[in-house]
Amino acid sequence: MDFLDHNATSPLDSRVLEAMLPFLHGETGNASSRHGYGRASRAAIEQAREQVAANVGAHPSQVIFTSGGTEADNLAILGICAGLEPSQICVGATEHPAVMRPAQALQKQGWQLAKIAVDGGGKLDVQSLAQNLQQPTGLVSVMTANNETGVLQDIPAIAGQARQHGAFMHTDAVQALGKIKLDFYALGVHAMSLSAHKIGGPQGAGALIVDKRLDIQPLLYGGGQEKGLRSGSENVAAIVGFGAACVWVQQELVMRTATMSALRGQLEQGLRRLGAVIFGEQVSRIPNTSFFAFPDIDGETLVMALDKQGFAAASGSACSSDSTEPSPVLLAMGVEPDLAKGAIRVSLGAGNTALQMSGFLKALQQELLKMKQMAAIAV
Amino acid sequence: MDFLDHNATSPLDSRVLEAMLPFLHGETGNASSRHGYGRASRAAIEQAREQVAANVGAHPSQVIFTSGGTEADNLAILGICAGLEPSQICVGATEHPAVMRPAQALQKQGWQLAKIAVDGGGKLDVQSLAQNLQQPTGLVSVMTANNETGVLQDIPAIAGQARQHGAFMHTDAVQALGKIKLDFYALGVHAMSLSAHKIGGPQGAGALIVDKRLDIQPLLYGGGQEKGLRSGSENVAAIVGFGAACVWVQQELVMRTATMSALRGQLEQGLRRLGAVIFGEQVSRIPNTSFFAFPDIDGETLVMALDKQGFAAASGSACSSDSTEPSPVLLAMGVEPDLAKGAIRVSLGAGNTALQMSGFLKALQQELLKMKQMAAIAV
Repeated sequence: MDFLDHNATSPLDSRVLEAMLPFLHGETGNASSRHGYGRASRAAIEQAREQVAANVGAHPSQVIFTSGGTEADNLAILGICAGLEPSQICVGATEHPAVMRPAQALQKQGWQLAKIAVDGGGKLDVQSLAQNLQQPTGLVSVMTANNETGVLQDIPAIAGQARQHGAFMHTDAVQALGKIKLDFYALGVHAMSLSAHKIGGPQGAGALIVDKRLDIQPLLYGGGQEKGLRSGSENVAAIVGFGAACVWVQQELVMRTATMSALRGQLEQGLRRLGAVIFGEQVSRIPNTSFFAFPDIDGETLVMALDKQGFAAASGSACSSDSTEPSPVLLAMGVEPDLAKGAIRVSLGAGNTALQMSGFLKALQQELLKMKQMAAIAV
Repeated sequence: MDFLDHNATSPLDSRVLEAMLPFLHGETGNASSRHGYGRASRAAIEQAREQVAANVGAHPSQVIFTSGGTEADNLAILGICAGLEPSQICVGATEHPAVMRPAQALQKQGWQLAKIAVDGGGKLDVQSLAQNLQQPTGLVSVMTANNETGVLQDIPAIAGQARQHGAFMHTDAVQALGKIKLDFYALGVHAMSLSAHKIGGPQGAGALIVDKRLDIQPLLYGGGQEKGLRSGSENVAAIVGFGAACVWVQQELVMRTATMSALRGQLEQGLRRLGAVIFGEQVSRIPNTSFFAFPDIDGETLVMALDKQGFAAASGSACSSDSTEPSPVLLAMGVEPDLAKGAIRVSLGAGNTALQMSGFLKALQQELLKMKQMAAIAV
């Protein structure tokens, strides 16, 4: 089976698992305990904090470990806004549900939600943002890279706009980590969400990187871990794995991105030949993601057929449980609902090969032919 | 090194790790994905849900997986109260910070917090609860077993009182799971918190077991996992491990509790001989926990000395990061602060032996003698 769905979850890197195993075998302590086991766990967490921080050019003290990207996004959106008087929150129209839904939840607390439009390529409309920022705004949240299309936003420019109007700026960089170089300061944001399991780390670990002057209210109260911002016994093994994964992707970033770019180029050349519409292809994207559709072909059906042929790809977003509707990301980009229903995402990772790309294209061609023949019979 | 701190975190059972490894090796899918990898992850999660439910006599559909016990407690306290008009919340005076602190946070939203007194043995004062329930009350939360003393509360009776006054009832059963038989219906609660890493499961998984008629608001919004009550890509390996751990502790409960009771009996016989005060010894406790102090001996210092001798025990609560203050649990039980500062917790688990108990007692005797000699010199 060929795995082409790394934006949903990327297999655990065996070197990362190796780093985790000492904390899964034998007697790991609670990191709050004062005895030798506890101190060893604490030291391992602090090393991982340095590793995560180093990957994104931040200081270790800026790293708040969470259970994953969704929690990091919620902590940013709900935790920052909890310390502010309700005003306006601006989010991109193509944000992940982990940003969009907490922003919607804030509406019950008196916040105005402005969804900032994107253009046909999926890029945020900066004019529209500027217009919305005429209203008093507490927080702007725009993702660095989109999980479906891979489209990159100009975060430094957007953060500059936000700051100019006195708003805090958050970015969900979950899909950008490990695919482009990320620098917290260069991005100009106050907070940035990361996740381990999209970069070969384990599920169950993520982080919010914060400007330390930012006032954040916790979502989870208890033992006061993570400086009171995220209570709960730390998942030591997962945090250690997150740190190790950050080290590996940082070391191998140039090689990985070159490989993924080349493979995607090969894939998209074939896709175009087969008549695919490739979403966001005209703008800059992370190098591993291709989101495309064939007119009059149902994406869900095609993905199931490809699965039977041994290729694991995604239809629409795999991070959402209600994916029978056309992708809201594509609708926001102005894609016709009928075409959007045909959307398939291939997202590459370490280990994918040119042979897989040609195999996938061959299988795709076969299935498209079958589906068109069936459609012809039905008519 | 002998590990005597299982209430803080219990080492991962090697059989549990074995169950987890297939989901750590190779290409695990995102459980929301439609391809083969995703469906395999989904099936594994649903099996774990059945295993957790079976351990506590609940239906699988009542299990909401979380990142751990703290999140389960917060989801119960904050999630239940979010759907109610602010009134009173009653919690035991000896609750874990994961219950106490979210309850305190509710005060900012107009809730009255009543801390229900406990007696000298640590048992909830049911008279005091009855008196407090004269006020309109939305939620009562009382832990099944205390993390420091191991003292068991009469949850069916307390839940009966709560229900009689129209309040919802939550119990933090994190320390009770795997140490006594738990039956969700017999307890009579509306919600019950569990954690994997206290029973030989992995860190990073927990659950809230709920009465399905209960209206709960999520803490984390996003992809809509766990029926919308806990968004975020599931930590598949950890959930699988939680399920496996539940199966093993259920199968071995009688044997485990008999062993732990015998070992604790041996330990406490020795402790009494050395002049220890054992907290909660007069009431029913989970069989693995002994919380004690020696007059005029500092617990923190003693724990460090025992650590050097190769015994990992805890001073006060290991789940809290601010443990230089005397244990609030002991203060609530009316223990003098000076004695409370001497508190040491030994919490047993699978793998502890009679030889370790006698070794621990011998080391303890030596260290007590040294500390008393030093005190004599200092005078």
